[in-house]
Amino acid sequence: MSTADVDLDALRASVTRQGAHVRELKQKGAAAELVQAAVEGLKKLKLELETQTTLQGPARDGLSSLDKKALDDVLLRKMFIVPSFEIYGGVGGFYDFGPPACALKSNLLQFWRRHFVFADKLLEVECTNLMPEVVLKTSGHVDRFTDLMVKCTKSGECYRADKLLEDHVENFLDKHPDLSTDEREKHELRATMAESYSPEEIHAVFQEYGIKAPGTGADLSFPIPFNLMFKCAIGPEGGMVGYLRPETAQGIFLNFRRLLEYNAGKVPFGCAQIGSAFRNEISPRAGLLRVREFQQAEIEFFVNPKDKSHAKFATVKDLELPLLTRTNQLTHGKAVQMTCGDAVSESVIANESLAYYLARTYLFCEAIGIDMKRLRFRQHLKTEMAHYAADCWDLEIKLSSGWVECAGHADRSCYDLSVHAKKSKVEMVGTHKFDKPEKRQIVEIKPNKGKMGRTFKSDVATILEALEGLRDDVARAQAFEEELAAKGEATLGPLCDGKEFRLQRDMVSIKVVEKMVSEEKFVPSVIEPSFGIGRLLTAVFEHNFSTREGDEKRGVMSFSPLIAPIKVSVLPLSNNSAFDPFVAELEQAFINTGLECKVDTSSVAIGRKYARADELGIPFGVTIDFETVTDRAVTLRERDSTAQVRIPIDVVGTEVSELVNGSTSWELLVERYPKVVAAGE
Amino acid sequence: MSTADVDLDALRASVTRQGAHVRELKQKGAAAELVQAAVEGLKKLKLELETQTTLQGPARDGLSSLDKKALDDVLLRKMFIVPSFEIYGGVGGFYDFGPPACALKSNLLQFWRRHFVFADKLLEVECTNLMPEVVLKTSGHVDRFTDLMVKCTKSGECYRADKLLEDHVENFLDKHPDLSTDEREKHELRATMAESYSPEEIHAVFQEYGIKAPGTGADLSFPIPFNLMFKCAIGPEGGMVGYLRPETAQGIFLNFRRLLEYNAGKVPFGCAQIGSAFRNEISPRAGLLRVREFQQAEIEFFVNPKDKSHAKFATVKDLELPLLTRTNQLTHGKAVQMTCGDAVSESVIANESLAYYLARTYLFCEAIGIDMKRLRFRQHLKTEMAHYAADCWDLEIKLSSGWVECAGHADRSCYDLSVHAKKSKVEMVGTHKFDKPEKRQIVEIKPNKGKMGRTFKSDVATILEALEGLRDDVARAQAFEEELAAKGEATLGPLCDGKEFRLQRDMVSIKVVEKMVSEEKFVPSVIEPSFGIGRLLTAVFEHNFSTREGDEKRGVMSFSPLIAPIKVSVLPLSNNSAFDPFVAELEQAFINTGLECKVDTSSVAIGRKYARADELGIPFGVTIDFETVTDRAVTLRERDSTAQVRIPIDVVGTEVSELVNGSTSWELLVERYPKVVAAGE
Repeated sequence: MSTADVDLDALRASVTRQGAHVRELKQKGAAAELVQAAVEGLKKLKLELETQTTLQGPARDGLSSLDKKALDDVLLRKMFIVPSFEIYGGVGGFYDFGPPACALKSNLLQFWRRHFVFADKLLEVECTNLMPEVVLKTSGHVDRFTDLMVKCTKSGECYRADKLLEDHVENFLDKHPDLSTDEREKHELRATMAESYSPEEIHAVFQEYGIKAPGTGADLSFPIPFNLMFKCAIGPEGGMVGYLRPETAQGIFLNFRRLLEYNAGKVPFGCAQIGSAFRNEISPRAGLLRVREFQQAEIEFFVNPKDKSHAKFATVKDLELPLLTRTNQLTHGKAVQMTCGDAVSESVIANESLAYYLARTYLFCEAIGIDMKRLRFRQHLKTEMAHYAADCWDLEIKLSSGWVECAGHADRSCYDLSVHAKKSKVEMVGTHKFDKPEKRQIVEIKPNKGKMGRTFKSDVATILEALEGLRDDVARAQAFEEELAAKGEATLGPLCDGKEFRLQRDMVSIKVVEKMVSEEKFVPSVIEPSFGIGRLLTAVFEHNFSTREGDEKRGVMSFSPLIAPIKVSVLPLSNNSAFDPFVAELEQAFINTGLECKVDTSSVAIGRKYARADELGIPFGVTIDFETVTDRAVTLRERDSTAQVRIPIDVVGTEVSELVNGSTSWELLVERYPKVVAAGE
Repeated sequence: MSTADVDLDALRASVTRQGAHVRELKQKGAAAELVQAAVEGLKKLKLELETQTTLQGPARDGLSSLDKKALDDVLLRKMFIVPSFEIYGGVGGFYDFGPPACALKSNLLQFWRRHFVFADKLLEVECTNLMPEVVLKTSGHVDRFTDLMVKCTKSGECYRADKLLEDHVENFLDKHPDLSTDEREKHELRATMAESYSPEEIHAVFQEYGIKAPGTGADLSFPIPFNLMFKCAIGPEGGMVGYLRPETAQGIFLNFRRLLEYNAGKVPFGCAQIGSAFRNEISPRAGLLRVREFQQAEIEFFVNPKDKSHAKFATVKDLELPLLTRTNQLTHGKAVQMTCGDAVSESVIANESLAYYLARTYLFCEAIGIDMKRLRFRQHLKTEMAHYAADCWDLEIKLSSGWVECAGHADRSCYDLSVHAKKSKVEMVGTHKFDKPEKRQIVEIKPNKGKMGRTFKSDVATILEALEGLRDDVARAQAFEEELAAKGEATLGPLCDGKEFRLQRDMVSIKVVEKMVSEEKFVPSVIEPSFGIGRLLTAVFEHNFSTREGDEKRGVMSFSPLIAPIKVSVLPLSNNSAFDPFVAELEQAFINTGLECKVDTSSVAIGRKYARADELGIPFGVTIDFETVTDRAVTLRERDSTAQVRIPIDVVGTEVSELVNGSTSWELLVERYPKVVAAGE
């Protein structure tokens, strides 16, 4: 078999499968030698994948046509994306949006609003960037959003402890090629375990190896957890800790009760938020893929956990999606085309609401000009998901750096509302009103507070709360009452703090009765589509950039007119003043039709003006020439085909407006107006 | 003269005049007794103003009709503005925007973009919220954005030192009514000086009075400057200090060079930014007027300092503005109506560009529904402005809390670009190309580096830089050369570090020559219109809220259709299922015409549905009744007049769309369709 015949997708699937196996073993707490053997297998597969990918070259991944260097040049030179604080040398992970990207983003977000919020009547909120600690402590971010860090005692420079250990082991093995297999494996295991060590454990390993700080060779500090959130003090006392939000979602959860009321108490409903989020990345990347400040657009769709159907599912039922399922990742590694309807009925996607949002995301991507052949939805492996998540699908888009997650779609169950409700003691539930009353087993609890008080004093409140908990658990309530009845006393607990209470018969009586009820309370599950705007923009840039050969190589941004930052350019053939009144007239016409236009009155040749407009992705260009002065007609050029037609100046505003909003097409226009042989291209 | 006859405006003017006099005396460093006498006069005037204002009551300020309590109730209950982190008790100075305010703000900002950015082809950028220290150190915020704070050594609570001293003196004088006039004045002077004391000075005064912490009575710390910016560490080392930006303007200045290039090197041009800003207020107020996180919309309009004319000034020349000039504040205290043209030609407003933006702001406020009788532009007094500012006008809107600054319009001269250029060593200049070459005196400098090097060694670079400085100062250059010629040597310096260098004749020769030049470089001046979005929204709320008597008192938000969060409501008369298809049909019609609509299918009476829609400020409502089922007509209601017409369901989408975009009016509509006698109001 020649190398070119190796199926990279299948090889990737093997790597994924083996990776999942390793994680599973670790989670189970399997014996070290088992874990290590699995890791060894994983390493071999990864090496093979790397070799084959290099051998087969980039030509086969469909991206060889992207001239990344030319794209980066246009992005910076045309002020799409520039490093923030550039005149002061910049700071890693911070970028500014210049005029064309600012407009592109604004158009993309306006369309996101129309597509997701307006069309489905979602609510929208705007919450603060700064949040007090209690919010992010409760959500788990204060504890969970950390990496272990060590600090050079000399330079103060910080390193991720796990990465340092991995590097050290690799170097160590390189320098000691004569070690026995057993010895090698012992060292390799340490690198494998690096991510899961506790601070004490990894510190011990550092001591054993005598790992010092790179560069200085100085001692390293004891490893401490480094939180990726930016911390501030709120208020003049400095005692109130605040964080910049690491995601926009939390603000929606905090407002759930008021949102429910705004929605007249009805579930399901969805709420969106567009806004900034902040993560103090240890090693930000160049470009918008891993930055310290970024924009998210998130939806929290609240549903009854017992009924996750979606009212508009029928509208997307027959839409085919490229799904890289959990199973496929562990077998052939390829995405399959499947309709939303089939995916739900075959339980590939967990429920209608989740599938509905995958479909809506698919349509969104199509509209903003993503190449749909380089897009897929990848399901999270079971080992990848948070324990509370029911299902999760990432929108992945193939970029020059590989498949990149640009949006997530998670069924987060009732996790977020539950933790905030518990901590804040504010009930966050929906109500399901039955069509007709239904039979339910109800736990009735009658405590005798006086009796309890004499025995338990200040613990009474705790006991009452624990008794309340029995309402949700008919079986346990029944067992407790039976024990009371049989023995005259029964033990409540141990509670979460370890306490137990021995209650007497006369302190409480419990009855389970059947009742007809007309409604039921529930903590809503949350379906969360979450978009990274910077990543989507990167995809738009990469999938819409090409170069064209002219006098020089010219970049072209083929933005969809829907989101193009500027819709039309006005290009007088030269800076002859005879053209001035026509420039003014066209500008006004485009302002009247609400179209962003850019006038280029410079003295460069018309070909250069076209090139400038193409770099900014302006879909249409109007050229004023000497004939215009007599015939009041102009040349209208389409960016991607570079084809041109001659069109009266009086209708050009309306025609371009219809081209932009999609009510006519370039093909139709070409039939109605005389074609012009392109000059200056 | 009866109290009702006292002219409050004139009295306010006296207070302003006297206040300016006090500030002037202080700035001049006038003798303490002079300052104190002026302060005494100021206090008397303030007391008189307070008394008269109380006597005349609120009825005369035109705001008695605002039911503030009812407004606050609607704002919270309908989820316009809710305290952030409410379920955790909230944190002062943080508010979330619920669905209606989020849409209102979005519409307002979209219109701001159309009105200021799109119509005038400004550039727009979006820069980061987090900025490294160097940016805000250079801009002056690290040093200037501070108040002196003292801390209770027991509770840790912080206080503004000046406020504490003022309160203490006031109490002290109350408790010692028997002091001699001289003694009293000595104490009063300390309160007057409170704001201008250094930490050492105010500490000494605290010691002298034995001022302790309020509440605890414990000792207070030494006063330290408290900066109102939120501080973060950027990056894992924690060594890089960052701040959340206190204004959006800085990001524009940092990008000046690239923006100029984007604008093909041409000045004037403007750049806008909409975004968050953060200020750690010591005492935030309830509501959106003084918060810790807020939104700004700012424009930096860069002009040649020698030519601040505006290309579109003619379009606003005849617009009359209510101007409360510097002079009027010091005389009768009233705003006068004056056209922009007159204001500029009479030098009331410093230049055309500044006046143009006042006019554009005026038109913007009119469009978003501000009551134009409660709006004025107040010019800053000379003593109020930063030393570098050339002129400054605040947009003030009269709210229930008095006249509130909602936007500023400052000519900040070249301050910002100059300081950043100097610190970053990046040139930030515009180029003025002359129509034909002009005669200029040019300083030519020929240094002999070899000769200098032998004498001055490593100081040569410093000397060369200092010599370069002579290019901008023909007179000094000439004098230096004359001294060299006369004495064979001349002294350069003292430089800013105090160093002096004695240069010999053979080290440098300087010549001043006349040359014809075709262009001139300049550091642009900046005209800065800056809007506080939360404050504008507060004005929109207050100026558009009224109550209507019905079964109960009902709030009505009379938002302009342009910015109304929801444009039309769909109200079936009851929840009878016969209405369902019509509800769906209307919803689709409004989606097709791009109109946000809200459906109310609850079972409450139609009058209650109208009331709900009025509270949300929905300008139009469509009622489906039993006749609709047979005649396919609906009732269309206008919010403010509560008038209703009967209209076919098939045209209602188009008609409402034209009402909202202003291409038809309610008055015209009423003529075309049969009027309905209002039911349920």
